[in-house]
Amino acid sequence: MTRPDPQTRPLDVIVLAAGAGTRMKSDLPKVLHPVAGRPMVGWAVKVARNLGARQIVVVTGHGAERVEETLGAEGLTFARQDQQLGTGHAFLCGADGLSGDGDVLVLYGDTPLLSEETLRDLLAEHRASGSAMTVLTGELPDATGYGRIIRDEAGHVQRIVEEKAANAEEKAVREFNSGVYVMDARAPELARQIGNDNPAQEYYLTDLLELYRRQGDTIGAYKLSDPDEVMGANDRRQLADAEAVMRRRITQGLMKEGVTIQSPDTVRIEDTVQIARDVVIEPGVILTGQTVIESGATIGAYSVIGRSHIGAGAVIKPHSVLEDAEVGAGADVGPFARLRPGTVLGEGVHIGNFVETKNARLDKGVKAGHLAYLGDVTIGQETNVGAGTIVANYDGVNKHPTQVGAGVFIGSNSTLIAPRTVGDAAFIAAGSAVHEDIPEGAMAVARGKQRNVEGWSRRYWGALREKVDAKLPWLSEWLKKN
Amino acid sequence: MTRPDPQTRPLDVIVLAAGAGTRMKSDLPKVLHPVAGRPMVGWAVKVARNLGARQIVVVTGHGAERVEETLGAEGLTFARQDQQLGTGHAFLCGADGLSGDGDVLVLYGDTPLLSEETLRDLLAEHRASGSAMTVLTGELPDATGYGRIIRDEAGHVQRIVEEKAANAEEKAVREFNSGVYVMDARAPELARQIGNDNPAQEYYLTDLLELYRRQGDTIGAYKLSDPDEVMGANDRRQLADAEAVMRRRITQGLMKEGVTIQSPDTVRIEDTVQIARDVVIEPGVILTGQTVIESGATIGAYSVIGRSHIGAGAVIKPHSVLEDAEVGAGADVGPFARLRPGTVLGEGVHIGNFVETKNARLDKGVKAGHLAYLGDVTIGQETNVGAGTIVANYDGVNKHPTQVGAGVFIGSNSTLIAPRTVGDAAFIAAGSAVHEDIPEGAMAVARGKQRNVEGWSRRYWGALREKVDAKLPWLSEWLKKN
Amino acid sequence: MTRPDPQTRPLDVIVLAAGAGTRMKSDLPKVLHPVAGRPMVGWAVKVARNLGARQIVVVTGHGAERVEETLGAEGLTFARQDQQLGTGHAFLCGADGLSGDGDVLVLYGDTPLLSEETLRDLLAEHRASGSAMTVLTGELPDATGYGRIIRDEAGHVQRIVEEKAANAEEKAVREFNSGVYVMDARAPELARQIGNDNPAQEYYLTDLLELYRRQGDTIGAYKLSDPDEVMGANDRRQLADAEAVMRRRITQGLMKEGVTIQSPDTVRIEDTVQIARDVVIEPGVILTGQTVIESGATIGAYSVIGRSHIGAGAVIKPHSVLEDAEVGAGADVGPFARLRPGTVLGEGVHIGNFVETKNARLDKGVKAGHLAYLGDVTIGQETNVGAGTIVANYDGVNKHPTQVGAGVFIGSNSTLIAPRTVGDAAFIAAGSAVHEDIPEGAMAVARGKQRNVEGWSRRYWGALREKVDAKLPWLSEWLKKN
Repeated sequence: MTRPDPQTRPLDVIVLAAGAGTRMKSDLPKVLHPVAGRPMVGWAVKVARNLGARQIVVVTGHGAERVEETLGAEGLTFARQDQQLGTGHAFLCGADGLSGDGDVLVLYGDTPLLSEETLRDLLAEHRASGSAMTVLTGELPDATGYGRIIRDEAGHVQRIVEEKAANAEEKAVREFNSGVYVMDARAPELARQIGNDNPAQEYYLTDLLELYRRQGDTIGAYKLSDPDEVMGANDRRQLADAEAVMRRRITQGLMKEGVTIQSPDTVRIEDTVQIARDVVIEPGVILTGQTVIESGATIGAYSVIGRSHIGAGAVIKPHSVLEDAEVGAGADVGPFARLRPGTVLGEGVHIGNFVETKNARLDKGVKAGHLAYLGDVTIGQETNVGAGTIVANYDGVNKHPTQVGAGVFIGSNSTLIAPRTVGDAAFIAAGSAVHEDIPEGAMAVARGKQRNVEGWSRRYWGALREKVDAKLPWLSEWLKKN
Repeated sequence: MTRPDPQTRPLDVIVLAAGAGTRMKSDLPKVLHPVAGRPMVGWAVKVARNLGARQIVVVTGHGAERVEETLGAEGLTFARQDQQLGTGHAFLCGADGLSGDGDVLVLYGDTPLLSEETLRDLLAEHRASGSAMTVLTGELPDATGYGRIIRDEAGHVQRIVEEKAANAEEKAVREFNSGVYVMDARAPELARQIGNDNPAQEYYLTDLLELYRRQGDTIGAYKLSDPDEVMGANDRRQLADAEAVMRRRITQGLMKEGVTIQSPDTVRIEDTVQIARDVVIEPGVILTGQTVIESGATIGAYSVIGRSHIGAGAVIKPHSVLEDAEVGAGADVGPFARLRPGTVLGEGVHIGNFVETKNARLDKGVKAGHLAYLGDVTIGQETNVGAGTIVANYDGVNKHPTQVGAGVFIGSNSTLIAPRTVGDAAFIAAGSAVHEDIPEGAMAVARGKQRNVEGWSRRYWGALREKVDAKLPWLSEWLKKN
Repeated sequence: MTRPDPQTRPLDVIVLAAGAGTRMKSDLPKVLHPVAGRPMVGWAVKVARNLGARQIVVVTGHGAERVEETLGAEGLTFARQDQQLGTGHAFLCGADGLSGDGDVLVLYGDTPLLSEETLRDLLAEHRASGSAMTVLTGELPDATGYGRIIRDEAGHVQRIVEEKAANAEEKAVREFNSGVYVMDARAPELARQIGNDNPAQEYYLTDLLELYRRQGDTIGAYKLSDPDEVMGANDRRQLADAEAVMRRRITQGLMKEGVTIQSPDTVRIEDTVQIARDVVIEPGVILTGQTVIESGATIGAYSVIGRSHIGAGAVIKPHSVLEDAEVGAGADVGPFARLRPGTVLGEGVHIGNFVETKNARLDKGVKAGHLAYLGDVTIGQETNVGAGTIVANYDGVNKHPTQVGAGVFIGSNSTLIAPRTVGDAAFIAAGSAVHEDIPEGAMAVARGKQRNVEGWSRRYWGALREKVDAKLPWLSEWLKKN
């Protein structure tokens, strides 16, 4: 066994993600339960990538296929642990494919809060100390339930005592084993010597300490500052706790960079979201996916926005739902707007309440203020879309496109029956069902002519007299007089 | 006085609910203020029922009629305490109607957090110890304000010292009296001996201790583990605190059983709601009444759902409001959907944004994606309801039904004027106001024919030239060119 | 220098608001960042006004123009501090314009939580003690970072030691300097003697202590009970913390007065809002501006209401957005209602889902239950507005008014093209585009006549056969049979 220079040796990561997670009471494999929008095991993979890992091996077991499918193959190796014979066994399953010349870091699929910073510190400590293996430890006022770290006089780790085996003095130790280790390249070979001569007949990865020590090596430890980072999420309550910690971490990071978040405990922002300074996030906002919000924009209360781009100074009013949408600078949207995939709003566009857009391109200055459905449509600049306008894009099986020019006035309650073309500066009379194209500058009217029938109401309500008298006092009086 | 075998004697419960609650500053009697959707006194009645009480007597006073009306007579006896002369007096009012051969448990109308488990433990302790009376106690670091429990050497309760009467040593006692007692059947008779020879001239139920002791009986105590359980809600702030504790209790129970709740502090779920495992509850959700949610369903953020049934795997998107509705398996609903009473959605039905249903039965696979009102209607499978469709079910005083067949295509912005029948596979042209029935397989069109007037826009905008130039730069340019 | 009677001398306030606030990372001057809807400096001005200050001088610097513009001139004097040379210098900038015969209170533009009660106590202490200067102090378990208060044996303040200059004994002192002082009228003159002979070359206002002491005066101190009150908001996280404290203060005040707030941590109510007793505020509600809510009203979950008046017993259902609206007693509104400026709803009016009103007066008993836009309109009592009704008030550049009488029935999906007058008891057939006025009692119909084309569907779907077979199984079967 050779020991390459710690400063230059590469890093491989093994993520143990085979556990059953029965306390989740779920059909979903434990490590796929999401925290702040990302499956727990995805957090481990993310941090491994950010550390510049050469190789990332994910050891799967329970629900292996689903875990592997979710993570995707990109840059990952999967190793199956078909039987759950302990962490030592899981490690060996993962270590099989390693090249054997780098440091090996062991992570877990159910500790999503472990941060890149902490692991960088662990690795730095490992490399600086020259230890063969370095344990990530934490400290709690009462570490009951955890394995305790027993150090020798030099401060090296002598052994780890599990709760069950600990005597009173050892139980008083507050430094605990997180289960996260970094080891030099000999670890896979040494791990083969781990036995299962214990009541549970399991292979324990902690046995590596003694195996290293027998080689004359020292074991180091790095104590993390926030023990929350290594708390596992084993049931839904711990999952919710982890989610809360992650969300707080994200909101505090954003606030530090100049984002106003009025009520941080009520918002849910995924770590994939980018928000510029002087953006205001009102209460209850949910932001997910690759969403980008430019400076000075306001996101109104209870809005739910996924994979969207919000331009500088745009105002999203409360109760808006956006998905795969692009909102131009200075646009104002909502309240109660629904922008669906393929929506592109130009600069200064106004979308009002109860308006839905889908695959819709609205140029600069278009206004659609009230109760409208705009699907598979392009609309030229400055066009006014009246209240109640529907673009009828569907024929029962196919969607058809509609093109509306610039400067068009679409009267209220109009229907544009696709495929349709409406020329620039056209005018559509309110209440029209437009079933033919409209040339530039033309007015289209497509509705019935009005006919007033005098005296009709007296007969109509008269026939319903009994109910009118019971329910409509004013009308009842009117009938008496007419 | 006979003492029947404690293991077999029945349980009667007296709920004291006559207090004024002036600190509530409310026209509503204090005990009717709801906690997590149930009037406070209702929680006491619920727990009494769950304990298998033979008889439940509710002692009412302030707002007695309203309290009695709210609780309803089912299985309850009401006793009036017309004057507020103390707990001893209230107890006697309630005890009057008891059969006198069972244990008597005293509960309160304003301590909604007291759990069934705690009371079962209290009763078990009472029966096991052979005490004539057992006091439910709690312990606080500082019990200032409460009556303190003074025990003798054998651990029996010697007496209860009120704050005012306590000396320094007694004030240091941290065990306090919750006011909840269980007593053997002699209590009503003994309570008659309670006097009011005290500054407030009130009859104190705690005097029972001494009366029992004079009979040579011992008084037991059962100390509850969470003193929060007996905290009364005397003002709106304590009411909100109680609500928070109750909500947390409910969400934690659900999470334990395999429900994902992303942000437990923001949701409000009543204890009457049943949720299967692998259901995901997003932030801000409110679930009330006899709502049932089957496994794998998702309830989107800020949705408000009452007395509804959500089928397995159904997805309720954010900002939906459901009331007395039934959603089939795999259906997807919302965002911004409103399902009102009498809505029954079949399997895989799609209800989109700004759609309202009321007394509406939509068969398997129906789609109503946008801006529609569907009232008093049945719709056959696979029918497509276009955007902006309105079922005009109201004639001013009566509601009329509409029947739409299967495989129908309802064009956008159509109006179906009830009562109406639309046959299977019928096709309604967009923008039609359907005022006659449509036979199977027929197409109906009921709209005006389109007429285009060329050159009209130039004249129209020309007449408004000044405003156009000021407000609509593109159109202003166009006018110059045309 | 004369010392007028402390009981009668007037109070002047200097608000220091010139700081840069770089940690805010904002283009907005620090003191303009809002807390609970009011710019931070606005809280200082508000409290100064409430104290009955004769003169309020705001010292501005960074973003001075914007700060001055935001505050407005009303009753305020502005003094510019062009260079940031320390608190002593800032004070002198502000003191220049003082009349010199009153007490001078120094406040800050970034400590919005300082309460009127605390300042009244500070002033009372100042006047009672006869001190020349009284320091507002607080106490923290660990006051690291703050200037420590060193008192002499008589309890007077001897000096204030900054963190850097403090020895171990001084560092152990837990009483800290808040920076808020009240001084007698000699302060401006004395402050001119403050030097900048220190490493930072700044003028420190704390030097006043020594200057007064040299005159033989004593320095008093008033220790506030809640040190949170003087915590400054220097970054967005502290801003969010301040917001949370302010919100809690407001909700607790309301609960004390008999308002039920189901989930106080999720609501956001500004201090300008007035709420009567027995109002119920559901989760997530946002109330801003001069909003008044009368007794017994209910505000549904996630509703956002600004500058509105809600009558007694009115019910605002969840997800409603109101702005500058007036809702009559007993009205019910929502869910998903949008009331815009100029909306006046009479008693018992019903506004349902997806309904928008703007500049709309609806008399007693009007019903508009579903999917409607009512703009620039007056509607007489008892009128029924059908689902999908649009008032087309806009011609492209101007808004026009519409008058609808009492007892009118507006059929579903109708369009009223403004300017329009509809007489009392008129009846509009569903689907009509009303382009002419309607006399009293007349029925208007303005839609196309229905035509049914039998057998049409077979041909239509037959032509789309391939897609029908793939996507619509029922229709595919039907085609086989027809």
